[in-house]
Amino acid sequence: KRKTKLDSNSLVTSILNQDITALSRAITLVESKNSTHKAQANTILKACLPHANKSVRIGITGVPGVGKSTFIEAFGKHLTAQGKRVAVLAIDPSSSITKGSILGDKTRMEALVKDDNAFIRPSASGDSLGGVARKTRETIILCEAAGFDVIIIETVGVGQSETTVHSMVDFFLLLKLSGAGDELQGIKRGIIEMADTIAINKADGDNIKQAKLAQVEFKRALHLYPEKASQWQPKVTLCSALENQGIEDIWNIILDYVRTTTKSKYFQHNRLEQNTFWLIQTVENQLKSNFFSTPKIKKALKEQIQLLENNKTTPFAAADYLLGIKD
Amino acid sequence: KRKTKLDSNSLVTSILNQDITALSRAITLVESKNSTHKAQANTILKACLPHANKSVRIGITGVPGVGKSTFIEAFGKHLTAQGKRVAVLAIDPSSSITKGSILGDKTRMEALVKDDNAFIRPSASGDSLGGVARKTRETIILCEAAGFDVIIIETVGVGQSETTVHSMVDFFLLLKLSGAGDELQGIKRGIIEMADTIAINKADGDNIKQAKLAQVEFKRALHLYPEKASQWQPKVTLCSALENQGIEDIWNIILDYVRTTTKSKYFQHNRLEQNTFWLIQTVENQLKSNFFSTPKIKKALKEQIQLLENNKTTPFAAADYLLGIKD
Repeated sequence: KRKTKLDSNSLVTSILNQDITALSRAITLVESKNSTHKAQANTILKACLPHANKSVRIGITGVPGVGKSTFIEAFGKHLTAQGKRVAVLAIDPSSSITKGSILGDKTRMEALVKDDNAFIRPSASGDSLGGVARKTRETIILCEAAGFDVIIIETVGVGQSETTVHSMVDFFLLLKLSGAGDELQGIKRGIIEMADTIAINKADGDNIKQAKLAQVEFKRALHLYPEKASQWQPKVTLCSALENQGIEDIWNIILDYVRTTTKSKYFQHNRLEQNTFWLIQTVENQLKSNFFSTPKIKKALKEQIQLLENNKTTPFAAADYLLGIKD
Repeated sequence: KRKTKLDSNSLVTSILNQDITALSRAITLVESKNSTHKAQANTILKACLPHANKSVRIGITGVPGVGKSTFIEAFGKHLTAQGKRVAVLAIDPSSSITKGSILGDKTRMEALVKDDNAFIRPSASGDSLGGVARKTRETIILCEAAGFDVIIIETVGVGQSETTVHSMVDFFLLLKLSGAGDELQGIKRGIIEMADTIAINKADGDNIKQAKLAQVEFKRALHLYPEKASQWQPKVTLCSALENQGIEDIWNIILDYVRTTTKSKYFQHNRLEQNTFWLIQTVENQLKSNFFSTPKIKKALKEQIQLLENNKTTPFAAADYLLGIKD
């Protein structure tokens, strides 16, 4: 126990000294399923907390092919050139199945990988999106304690992962292409609603004219959505990550967003809301899993579903029966 | 106890004899918060179950102004004219606030109200959509035991109520108007995805041309959605409830749907899925409310949120703390 405590203390000191090796080790502890590691991770997180929360957390989404990696590389380099320290994390709902990650192939961000002011961490794998999300949120805290000014959370434009990312970032950026309709781009309407800014990427060469048309159309479409809780009017902007165009504009929009929402106190309010959401969510998931994972309940649930199938019970009578077992 | 049992037995017998007064009394028991009434309701439901499940359950939604009441009246009269018995229920998420109901004003369905083969019941009020949904589902069972062939569940096109209705019906009908865009009609895209048929109402007089254009557009739009689990290709049809046009077509579509999905076994499969969904949902809601409603947890939750606000804990550490109290 003494050794662990010493290790934790020295890890925390190293993290606060911006030691990337220590940061990586702490993230590995956060991701571990081993209970000793988990306990150590919790100790480290607690010690890091007072030094966290000072970054800008940016969610970036867009379907495969939109140029996310190229964008993040250009965006990241723009920030590190200003002396900012940038961490790139990922939420990848498919990683639990493929055991891979969209950031696994770091060669796609060659320049950023080599940058001393950048830290790229492939997404944690896990059995559930909830588990992956917890690890990512705890990793954010560690990265912030390690002095990263900007945390980018990348996700692919499928499934529930955008909602998850949206619930852990300050600013949500949606990358799109001009020309292709929403359906073709596989973007759900709910995701457009979450965006604080839509950036139309690959707005270069012959594409520029079409991109400008798309910009006008998106601006009009966004006006139809109800006002955001942040009172922020989402922007639509053009960029070419490949040609390094429009990247600075996006960063300026984000700075404007942070300034405006900090002044209105929405920024702080939103972070507390997100924390409360994750607290409640974690408790609820644990309650469910505690209940349904006992052998007694598993067996009874099967029997009750059988009774439902034969019209011998109602869902509500069956629920009462199951809850009675637990008590 | 003996008296209650006798009452329950005679109520069940009367319900099975299609006695509307007995049916209404049983529904009132289902809706009651009194625990004796609840117990009696459960006894009655259990006795009714073997006689239930034989109707076609139809969900109908559409924003205010689309002509839902007029449609349900015309549709209901069409069915009772064929000797069918029709029950009309409602899920109204606003009823818990206004204590009113979209069906409260029965004068809007004058002819159907007077029809001996029709039964109209305003929506149950309740603190939560979940509570209202439970009462509605139990009311469906009672109506089926009372020999109703068609159960219509109406809802207004707002909030979560469509999803709730969709999870308790066999067939989901969306009423729309021609001319107005989705945004203006306040219809969320998810609702269009749930529809088994879209009926463009008020397709009469000068409106017919526009309604036909809307029909073509909707047909094209529906093709972009992924295939339904039922493998049913949603239809788009025109009607004028006011002029009693197109009503028979819609009923024929529904009959076709029931025939097709019964043959493919999706119909039965879907009902079991819905039952299982409601079982799990009920257990989960009860687990949450049991946990969070204890004074100890309420107090601790407040304290933990305070700690979150001061960056002194993480949502996950706070969750672990709360779950530790319960154990």
